[in-house]
Amino acid sequence: MSKIGDFTITASHPSSLARQGDLFTAHGSLLTPAFMPCASRGVVRALAPQDIADRGLQIMICNAFHLLDHPGEEALARRGGLHQFMSWPGLLATDSGGYQVFSLAEPRDISEAGVRVRSPRTGQPLLLTPERSLQAQNTLGADLIMCFDECAPFPCEREYAAQSVERTLRWAERSHAAHQREDQLLFGIVQGSVYPELRARSAQATVALDFPAYAIGGVSVGESREQMLEAVEVCLEHLPPDKPRYVMGVGTPLDIVDCVVRGVDLFDCVLPTRNARHGLLYTWSGVLRLGNSRFREDDGPLEEGCSCPACRGYSRAYLQYLFRLKEGAAWRLLSLHNLQFYATLVHRIREAIPAGQLGKLWEQVAQASERLEEPSC
Amino acid sequence: MSKIGDFTITASHPSSLARQGDLFTAHGSLLTPAFMPCASRGVVRALAPQDIADRGLQIMICNAFHLLDHPGEEALARRGGLHQFMSWPGLLATDSGGYQVFSLAEPRDISEAGVRVRSPRTGQPLLLTPERSLQAQNTLGADLIMCFDECAPFPCEREYAAQSVERTLRWAERSHAAHQREDQLLFGIVQGSVYPELRARSAQATVALDFPAYAIGGVSVGESREQMLEAVEVCLEHLPPDKPRYVMGVGTPLDIVDCVVRGVDLFDCVLPTRNARHGLLYTWSGVLRLGNSRFREDDGPLEEGCSCPACRGYSRAYLQYLFRLKEGAAWRLLSLHNLQFYATLVHRIREAIPAGQLGKLWEQVAQASERLEEPSC
Repeated sequence: MSKIGDFTITASHPSSLARQGDLFTAHGSLLTPAFMPCASRGVVRALAPQDIADRGLQIMICNAFHLLDHPGEEALARRGGLHQFMSWPGLLATDSGGYQVFSLAEPRDISEAGVRVRSPRTGQPLLLTPERSLQAQNTLGADLIMCFDECAPFPCEREYAAQSVERTLRWAERSHAAHQREDQLLFGIVQGSVYPELRARSAQATVALDFPAYAIGGVSVGESREQMLEAVEVCLEHLPPDKPRYVMGVGTPLDIVDCVVRGVDLFDCVLPTRNARHGLLYTWSGVLRLGNSRFREDDGPLEEGCSCPACRGYSRAYLQYLFRLKEGAAWRLLSLHNLQFYATLVHRIREAIPAGQLGKLWEQVAQASERLEEPSC
Repeated sequence: MSKIGDFTITASHPSSLARQGDLFTAHGSLLTPAFMPCASRGVVRALAPQDIADRGLQIMICNAFHLLDHPGEEALARRGGLHQFMSWPGLLATDSGGYQVFSLAEPRDISEAGVRVRSPRTGQPLLLTPERSLQAQNTLGADLIMCFDECAPFPCEREYAAQSVERTLRWAERSHAAHQREDQLLFGIVQGSVYPELRARSAQATVALDFPAYAIGGVSVGESREQMLEAVEVCLEHLPPDKPRYVMGVGTPLDIVDCVVRGVDLFDCVLPTRNARHGLLYTWSGVLRLGNSRFREDDGPLEEGCSCPACRGYSRAYLQYLFRLKEGAAWRLLSLHNLQFYATLVHRIREAIPAGQLGKLWEQVAQASERLEEPSC
């Protein structure tokens, strides 16, 4: 009988570190590698929760800081938690809020206790601490939750990065101690900026605290693709292979395949929905810039054979017209397409692992990534 | 064998002038009384065409002037018309553009030839005439199209209204002569402001031009409900009972029932979608103001028993939260609910006609209209 947090590796890829898995949670089994669309405020921009399930995606990631700010912890507690509030029967993750808090904070706002910020909505002062974040995340009740950490900026001096790693470790210990619910999986988070020895130190010490799953944070913050992959690699060397590994905020389709072949199981990123709202559409033959004038008279779908509502229902010409009008329907339909692409991507990745076909898939994704269908305008 | 424009009255209401009908068009049979959501620019705000069909609505009305401005007549001609451009297999109507043109024009811009305006998009001057409007509407290819008329403002002096009626009649003759396609039904439009004798003159002379269907324009422009119903009544007395009758821009649910019992078959109005975007939701027990703080913790649906995606999927609390965030999902879900209400309304009207139950339905709609669920805030 499975218990919450059980992670079964169901297949391994013969020529890489990629693995196919099944993570047992209170809201069902998550098939990995998996992608989590960002629903920071309890909704994926321009979409409703049902739209996510309809794409075949099992999980969304919300932000504890945004939700603590509004609608607020008490209101969510009275609704019975985030799943009930969103009427979402699937899986949920929450970020600790650390990333947002640090983006709002000045250096003087950061202390050993936590981070002092003002609510972006009301201006009220708020001290976010590991205990406060965990209390909020316990109330929200997501299946996967995160330690309160510091995501160091990029670029970041070695000395600051080292201090930040140590503080994040002390906060990880406090997060672990504050966590109250056995039906939620608490992820330890590895930091260390672009410094391999700090990444190694952070990973080893976080693993020593014995979390049921691990996240790699502080990547995709402005560093190069090579720096990102190097940082991820160092962390992975020190993370236990039998536990789920999540790379936060990554990434492009190619980043995802590149991390999968190194042994990553979980991803989240705003790219598919944000790019959709800017008219950048992912297809298996390249990125399509919908605003380009050559699509004005194009009666074809965004992508031949795609089963999303945009491709099944409408032409490039009509979608471009709606996009230029800034119609809500455009943002929704284009977001549905890009999420369908990401859902298909992780589905193909999961299928390619037992079949030993990840190399072929990597080639295909790399080619599509290089080749914009349109010159940038 | 039915031919385009055949209008069969399939049932009459025993105690009123209401009738149930079936209008045969190039894109199928339209069951009347019918409601047409406004898709002025070829899309209902916040929704996609498929959403309209999913509500059980058969037809949308678009605006020839807006579409002439953008994407333009040539682009639509190359797409094969408006149905193809929108990927909409159902019925379409187009307004002539008169209403919009007059809202942009100064008195000196109006001549016997037509109306001179500038494109709101490019600033280019444009002379809209009956011939130009009909040419555009023929190109767009909607099933129901309108004569180019003057919709007089409200209030309007009798002398101006009388001149305007005569000019609209001369334009009706020119529209009739310019119309080229037998697969499109051209509606003659009755004007006359709030003056019964002008309404009668306009109706009689328009009928003398022998159109396959008639619209009543120049109502719902600021006059009282009583003035609107009186103007509609006078027109209806002079319109042939065997032809479809359309009251333009009407109205609230109660207005619709009131017009149906007087013998009207077709309606269009921005109210359901515009009100949705302002958080005003129609329910069978009254209008609900979603922004009201009492819904903040309300786990119930907008309306018990409603089959729309908003009611099936989400609570009032979550919808209010999305609405306050100004999320696209809120505008879409709330618009879907209000259109579902209007679709249910005309469906119930059609069923009540043979059953002799319109009086009972009127009572129910009148009660719901009087009673706001919430005091206005």
